[in-house]
Amino acid sequence: MALWVRFQHAGGEGFGTLEGDSIQPHSGDLFAAPTPSGETIPAAGLRFLAPVRPGAFIGLWNNLHEAAAKAGWALPETPLYFLKSSRSVVGPEEAIRPPAGYAGRVIYEGELGLVIGRRCKDATEEEAASAIFGLTCVNDVTALDLLNADPSFPQWARAKGCDSFGPIGPAIATGLDASALRVRVALNGRVRQDYPVSDMILPPARIVSLLSREMTLEPGDVIACGTSVGALPMRPGMVVEVTIDGIGTLRNVFAPAEGAPAQPS
Amino acid sequence: MALWVRFQHAGGEGFGTLEGDSIQPHSGDLFAAPTPSGETIPAAGLRFLAPVRPGAFIGLWNNLHEAAAKAGWALPETPLYFLKSSRSVVGPEEAIRPPAGYAGRVIYEGELGLVIGRRCKDATEEEAASAIFGLTCVNDVTALDLLNADPSFPQWARAKGCDSFGPIGPAIATGLDASALRVRVALNGRVRQDYPVSDMILPPARIVSLLSREMTLEPGDVIACGTSVGALPMRPGMVVEVTIDGIGTLRNVFAPAEGAPAQPS
Repeated sequence: MALWVRFQHAGGEGFGTLEGDSIQPHSGDLFAAPTPSGETIPAAGLRFLAPVRPGAFIGLWNNLHEAAAKAGWALPETPLYFLKSSRSVVGPEEAIRPPAGYAGRVIYEGELGLVIGRRCKDATEEEAASAIFGLTCVNDVTALDLLNADPSFPQWARAKGCDSFGPIGPAIATGLDASALRVRVALNGRVRQDYPVSDMILPPARIVSLLSREMTLEPGDVIACGTSVGALPMRPGMVVEVTIDGIGTLRNVFAPAEGAPAQPS
Repeated sequence: MALWVRFQHAGGEGFGTLEGDSIQPHSGDLFAAPTPSGETIPAAGLRFLAPVRPGAFIGLWNNLHEAAAKAGWALPETPLYFLKSSRSVVGPEEAIRPPAGYAGRVIYEGELGLVIGRRCKDATEEEAASAIFGLTCVNDVTALDLLNADPSFPQWARAKGCDSFGPIGPAIATGLDASALRVRVALNGRVRQDYPVSDMILPPARIVSLLSREMTLEPGDVIACGTSVGALPMRPGMVVEVTIDGIGTLRNVFAPAEGAPAQPS
């Protein structure tokens, strides 16, 4: 069990394990036996970054039984997914900003994120399970009014891929049993999503195994496993927190677009 | 005007300009004033690679008037796009392979590819035009029977993002006037697509400008501008060639899936 974080330090970026109030910085490759430096840095006052910069950032649609039942969706047998732009990635405490000129609804979606630790191609479920390096929190932010702005073409990549629409963090936790976890989202401190990972239609290892039949997964890839009921629009200035016990709380503020009029909250 | 290529050489990868039968290798960053080494390498016998490894690989749907008219699609005012996985990228002469176990239709789509040369955010059309480093050929390969395999969710990322489904190359041409170009695709030597870039609904600079309002574009990103009529399924062993005069011919063979039965061609 470890909590891996990435942070700004000494004019650059560092990564290491978070242990209580301090960090053990490491060098090398997070996914290839990194080496502890032997130092210790106090965590207080550090600026934490997204713990990983995914090469592929995959998001699942319709993967929670409760959400599917509520919406009347059939249960999928394979992952139904879109790709989020890597440009969407931000870390804890970074602002979520709608694109300039967009005044439509922007919703949060709290999700479990799988972080791939080794190359994975045509993997069995057992191989897939061991290719998952760890788990993180993802806020799969979505510009709902871009998604269906064109009646002929649902714009998943666009609605999900705007700059700052992919908060990840605050840490990657290793050694957790995903099936025992819950995903909670609080908006201005009020809990709006709270669902068990065990409600997933396709569990993590099956998702990774099935994806790997078509697309080679690489270390650092992130798979957001889909959300459940309770995803709602945010208003400017609202604080959104995605919490998974054992990983931590991913906290971001929804900022108004630059130049956009402030809305009453 | 230059033709930038990437190639295997001396156990590693190199890049440089193709001039007739020889290459002038360069060092540094392709997008930041690379330096010629002063050597010359004969092009014959070199293995060429995809000339760029895009961080974001964007593909447009419905961007040619002729295709829209034939299908009865409304003309879009903004780019309707999906993201292709960066894992899909292969170079000239590399095999296009369907995923193991997939026996459905796989189509080619010959397209003009824009290669971004500098960071681009909220760009005007004029800024966008100058952010386009050069042009390349893209084959936007698609597993047609995955796209609509689930009636509730069109699977663009999946159908377009399989390993080897994004051939790019053979070169990036700088200094060409895109509006004067034609895109031609030959299947086993028989021309199946042949359309002018001037038939695009959204021209290159407008595409880049509009995309950059929502997603920051970075050097090396590739935007496939959409295809026209004549995209057809390939059969195993077929040779598919995307040609744009001034850029060259991107040639790939469609190989059967490993373990799949050979089909008569």
